[in-house]
Amino acid sequence: MQAELISIGTELTTGAVIDTNAPWLAERLTRLGVPVSRQVTLADSRRHIAGAIGQAATRTGLVVVTGGLGPTPDDLTRHALADAAGVPLERDEASAGRIAEFFAKIGKPMPESNLVQALVPAGARVLDNPHGTAPGLALCVGRAMVFALPGVPREMKPMFENAVEPWVRAQGGTGVAVRALRTFGAGESRVAEQLGDLLDPGRNPAVGTTAGDAVITVRIVAAAATPEQADQMADADVHTVRRILGPLVFGTGEDTLGAVVGAQLADRGLSLSVAESCTGGLLGAMITDVPGSSAYFAGGYVTYSNARKVADLGVDAELIKRCGAVSGPVAEAMAAGCRARIGTDYALSITGIAGPDGGTADKPVGLVYVGLADPLGACCKRCLFSDRLDRAAIRRRSAHVALNLLRLTLRATT
Amino acid sequence: MQAELISIGTELTTGAVIDTNAPWLAERLTRLGVPVSRQVTLADSRRHIAGAIGQAATRTGLVVVTGGLGPTPDDLTRHALADAAGVPLERDEASAGRIAEFFAKIGKPMPESNLVQALVPAGARVLDNPHGTAPGLALCVGRAMVFALPGVPREMKPMFENAVEPWVRAQGGTGVAVRALRTFGAGESRVAEQLGDLLDPGRNPAVGTTAGDAVITVRIVAAAATPEQADQMADADVHTVRRILGPLVFGTGEDTLGAVVGAQLADRGLSLSVAESCTGGLLGAMITDVPGSSAYFAGGYVTYSNARKVADLGVDAELIKRCGAVSGPVAEAMAAGCRARIGTDYALSITGIAGPDGGTADKPVGLVYVGLADPLGACCKRCLFSDRLDRAAIRRRSAHVALNLLRLTLRATT
Repeated sequence: MQAELISIGTELTTGAVIDTNAPWLAERLTRLGVPVSRQVTLADSRRHIAGAIGQAATRTGLVVVTGGLGPTPDDLTRHALADAAGVPLERDEASAGRIAEFFAKIGKPMPESNLVQALVPAGARVLDNPHGTAPGLALCVGRAMVFALPGVPREMKPMFENAVEPWVRAQGGTGVAVRALRTFGAGESRVAEQLGDLLDPGRNPAVGTTAGDAVITVRIVAAAATPEQADQMADADVHTVRRILGPLVFGTGEDTLGAVVGAQLADRGLSLSVAESCTGGLLGAMITDVPGSSAYFAGGYVTYSNARKVADLGVDAELIKRCGAVSGPVAEAMAAGCRARIGTDYALSITGIAGPDGGTADKPVGLVYVGLADPLGACCKRCLFSDRLDRAAIRRRSAHVALNLLRLTLRATT
Repeated sequence: MQAELISIGTELTTGAVIDTNAPWLAERLTRLGVPVSRQVTLADSRRHIAGAIGQAATRTGLVVVTGGLGPTPDDLTRHALADAAGVPLERDEASAGRIAEFFAKIGKPMPESNLVQALVPAGARVLDNPHGTAPGLALCVGRAMVFALPGVPREMKPMFENAVEPWVRAQGGTGVAVRALRTFGAGESRVAEQLGDLLDPGRNPAVGTTAGDAVITVRIVAAAATPEQADQMADADVHTVRRILGPLVFGTGEDTLGAVVGAQLADRGLSLSVAESCTGGLLGAMITDVPGSSAYFAGGYVTYSNARKVADLGVDAELIKRCGAVSGPVAEAMAAGCRARIGTDYALSITGIAGPDGGTADKPVGLVYVGLADPLGACCKRCLFSDRLDRAAIRRRSAHVALNLLRLTLRATT
């Protein structure tokens, strides 16, 4: 079986919004052993959407439509799906009740328009949406199963997992196993060089790399006659990749550096605080993105100005004058001061020039110092990020470098 | 005239790479007055690509294909284009010469495979590629003009500007104008209700809404005989939408709440600090995401634990005991304490339960208090976010609510 994807929305065909749903669905379906043969993006036109659903249903066994299920007049997917199947729309009382309930719970009056979301093509299965008001729909069109999912990724993804994935699995098994190893500390081409022949096109398992904010993910996709065989092949490659890359590997799947460092701290009953300058709170936000982070994260300081570095962290004003706020000694003093003030086992600090302004010949945009204080003292790491990176990328990478510094330190002191 | 886009590559249909070419082209073509009616993504299959080009050419006057022009065996666009036009491939000597020259210039031997890039469909115009080896192609298929451009964005974009844009302009003028208004403070269905008939499908200008982290964007697309007429129509609708939505509108285009509040502060020479609990630094990160934010942002405190709220912000430990850390009085005390410690004109605070754990019957997950301190005192706003939102969404919305509270306060005190 193959699948086709249809993404709906004038915000997509005008380029105002980038469609992240289609690549996400493509990846998930590929992993499930269902290659995506075609993906179509259409503006909000009932006739065009109905036509595209009808055509896709003649070519393939599974069609996944995203978007156009909202309450406004430009949301036309349910009408188009009914047209494609040649059935009328009917009011689904259970959906109407759930929508009314949703508004009652948040204590707001329900706009009448929301009830259009309770209209479903006759014969369609209604897919519950625990994360929003738009229910999804599943309906046979010709020989194909068509799923219509909401366009909001946060609502679409769980609905895919709860409705589409089980349907695909029930269609019967080929074996595909997917693994991902997350690495930090070497660039994508260096990781690729170390992996060598493993990356050969056509190899099974297929091994590939993708990069995001200096986190390099190594992805392994094994295909075999049965799921068990595929699992064995994938796991053998995981073992090989781990052996080759060693401490560069920090996690698996969707692990973040924040979650991995958090688990290291929690396991050993250690605590952490942060002092941030150019990242302005981003490091703290990454750490506290992890549920339960209050077990090891006490808090921190955003010392954006020099005055705050002196007042909140006790950094010597003379030191800032002599070395500059963006320097190794100040990064170390920030971390040490933060650790002392808050009384944590570890403290991380970041000071740098994220740009686009503020760079000089001596200290260009992209120069960042990351500090770490622990019971033995303080140290720092100097980074000079490429001038191709923008402010947001420099900030995200700086926070990653800080978390990785702590990860390796904790690893070395096990 | 309308356009269709075709993106080629198995890396796209497997979700390994996100297609940024299609949205870029869609935006450029929309601005040129050529709406994109459909965008198709296909794997590397000569037959499917040829079929898609042929179908698109029956529906529309302009087809832009990206990708599949490289030197490897899975690059099949030139073959497919020849198939769709029903012409053979021929060797273009000028292209062969330019490719050899390119390799001579970078001082590397030319792989023989690169010469496939000198094969062109008979009758096609060759589009020079100053940034790589793959020349582009332009060829009439039926009544449509088909442009095939490289998939590498750095090579594709200048070729679009040098070849496609002049061709579109030469077809004579239609005008399209696009506007976006950004709003905060009402849900999408509430905004839609207020906009009423403006959202009617088929209306020109077309008005639509999209939502992200409680920011509702109202998009206006006007089509007319000339760009000037389209601008006038779009601006008239902007005026109407602004009149209807009033202070809900905080900006235009891609404006963020952080940037808009920053501009308000900078214009009036005012300063800001923040005290964050459940957002853990995210509010500071949003504020400092704006270049030049050091002009008005001094810094702040991430007081994740109660002890830090007392030590860094001077919140009364008794108050926390009596009201709880997640309460209006504590939010106000956090903001007032932060403002006093750092000495800024304004201070924002956030304390809440982002979940998934930590909620109680009295204080459920999603309960967040946002505090604001200014020269006149402190106030707070209570939010109860839907239990359909996850931790990350609650944190992003909380930071948005805080920024919006300051925006409205600054607006009221102009």
